[in-house]
Amino acid sequence: MGEKPETPIRFGIIGCANIARKVARAINLAPCSVLYAIGSRSIEKAKQFASDNGVRESVKIYGSYDQVLDDPFVDAVYMPLPTSLHLHWAVMAARRKKHVLIEKPTALDVTELEQILEACESNGVQFMDGSMWLHHPRTVKMKETLFDSKLLGDVNYIYSTSTTSVSPEFLENDIRVKADMDALGALGDIGWYCLGAILWAKNYQLPTLVTALPDVSKNSNGVILSCSASIQYGEPAETVGIIHCSFFSSTSMDLTITGSGGSLNLRDFIIPYQESSASFEFTVGAKLAQLHIGWNVKPQKVVVDSELPQEALMVQEFAGLVHDIRTSASHPDPKWPDISRKTQMLLDAVKKSVDFGCKPVYF
Amino acid sequence: MGEKPETPIRFGIIGCANIARKVARAINLAPCSVLYAIGSRSIEKAKQFASDNGVRESVKIYGSYDQVLDDPFVDAVYMPLPTSLHLHWAVMAARRKKHVLIEKPTALDVTELEQILEACESNGVQFMDGSMWLHHPRTVKMKETLFDSKLLGDVNYIYSTSTTSVSPEFLENDIRVKADMDALGALGDIGWYCLGAILWAKNYQLPTLVTALPDVSKNSNGVILSCSASIQYGEPAETVGIIHCSFFSSTSMDLTITGSGGSLNLRDFIIPYQESSASFEFTVGAKLAQLHIGWNVKPQKVVVDSELPQEALMVQEFAGLVHDIRTSASHPDPKWPDISRKTQMLLDAVKKSVDFGCKPVYF
Repeated sequence: MGEKPETPIRFGIIGCANIARKVARAINLAPCSVLYAIGSRSIEKAKQFASDNGVRESVKIYGSYDQVLDDPFVDAVYMPLPTSLHLHWAVMAARRKKHVLIEKPTALDVTELEQILEACESNGVQFMDGSMWLHHPRTVKMKETLFDSKLLGDVNYIYSTSTTSVSPEFLENDIRVKADMDALGALGDIGWYCLGAILWAKNYQLPTLVTALPDVSKNSNGVILSCSASIQYGEPAETVGIIHCSFFSSTSMDLTITGSGGSLNLRDFIIPYQESSASFEFTVGAKLAQLHIGWNVKPQKVVVDSELPQEALMVQEFAGLVHDIRTSASHPDPKWPDISRKTQMLLDAVKKSVDFGCKPVYF
Repeated sequence: MGEKPETPIRFGIIGCANIARKVARAINLAPCSVLYAIGSRSIEKAKQFASDNGVRESVKIYGSYDQVLDDPFVDAVYMPLPTSLHLHWAVMAARRKKHVLIEKPTALDVTELEQILEACESNGVQFMDGSMWLHHPRTVKMKETLFDSKLLGDVNYIYSTSTTSVSPEFLENDIRVKADMDALGALGDIGWYCLGAILWAKNYQLPTLVTALPDVSKNSNGVILSCSASIQYGEPAETVGIIHCSFFSSTSMDLTITGSGGSLNLRDFIIPYQESSASFEFTVGAKLAQLHIGWNVKPQKVVVDSELPQEALMVQEFAGLVHDIRTSASHPDPKWPDISRKTQMLLDAVKKSVDFGCKPVYF
């Protein structure tokens, strides 16, 4: 991450989705960024958003996305638009030299994402998707436990869920179940995190094959509302990841990583139970006690405090990279586009397996 | 469960596997039973077992299984034999009017098990398998949470693991990886619990289809060392269960049951971390807090104390049923054979799907 910039990075928000409220707050919490402009399809919606969220009067309010992109003082845009609009607006933003912080899923498929990334690269702007949990210090601490210390031994099993029980109105009207808006449904909206977690745990190595499980549920327009998949490394398997995402089950965000020597577990990996402090558990060297009447060890809890919420840390990281590009003419950091690309590739593979009746899809 | 018998139920143990040590202790801990005889293939092995485990001098030591079954004072046998020997010895025991407490997996397939159950039924003896966790008061408490209170809403997702990281010697020599001994490998030995947990959570309703996942690992003799499966209810799915069992991953015994309204979770469901007290967590009505910066609720922990270890409670339950049959000429309780039969059917289906290249197997 770059140094703290002398002049803060000015963000424009394109689209006033609910999630924008959280990120608007994060932009102001982060030490190196400021909310500079808000654009919606209508000036009324933008004004409403501004007044609902106590946005400072100095923030520019625009009645179109284009106006945000045309404002020469906007350094970067945060884009919580329906997925079907990502390609157009992210490319437009890049062409106008705006750095792009975009909500997940990044695009309808990796072909679209490649176009966005190409536009960002050729225009020298930073790209990052909105996977906030990757920026939490707990995630950093877990990675140490996983990789640096080798406490878990060889990782051979990863399990991740992302579920939320939505309302009947959501199932009827939300853009996340509309084929022309967020065609990837639950897989794109919340499955993104599960797939990201598998890749994260495998240090962004792509799997050998991906197989959707037969429990997929779709609405009448073919949008996925619930699904599960097996993400397999090696054949025969050296590591297997299993994901489950659903709009029908009560809120869950489980992540378990198991190796030959131990396991790591948490149940709130995407959004911690509380902002200021988060935890995970790990168990190392677990065996059954003599006579198998209990365990020799119990899970150990690791607590990680966080001064800033993870979304502010994400904004801080992003703004730091933008600052580096601006002040020292450095290149955009390829790490974040690479993470997005691989996650989208994995998502495409699950979708393809679903579409082809749960046939395995090879990489 | 029956009343405490005036004369305790006399157990004979057939086979001196490691697990027999735990159950020998349980037989003596349970208030209504006594260890009466031990039989091994050689008198030396039986004597060694007796001395290793501080067995009282009054306990009969036999150098063959037949001698245990021929002893008229033996009421019931506990049978921790390799699975391939279950059919022969369980049928022999039943014919000699011995009640049968048998280790899991109950048989090599449900056809074999049906023969055992038929022998038990026609001879009026009780049958029960060694799924100890079903007898823990925590399990009873979880069932209340699940079914009586409807706290979780409609259960639509169940997840269960049973893994243990075995030694190279185990992979070479243990009977649980030998095709002529425990041909069902990890699926039979530890996957049994995962499948039992799915059935338990669905009140012993059989699923619609079962599909093995492609991550199966076998040894050179075709014995399963690791596998995963999807257990689906309804088509399209109303509930899906995912299981994972493995001889390669560090000890895990995860069970998560998620419904539309909440979830229940524990990580030691097969053998609690400690004998005297066990716990589970449940989360009800979880939503993300305003702005999605945390959860509105955290998991609640339920602690359940247990005066006797679960294996002693199993023996107590079994002995109570035997006592009822003996004193009031009542019929064996069909509940336990039914649980075993359904678990074995599910196991057979997973095995079949594995053998047929992960094709779905319908019930």
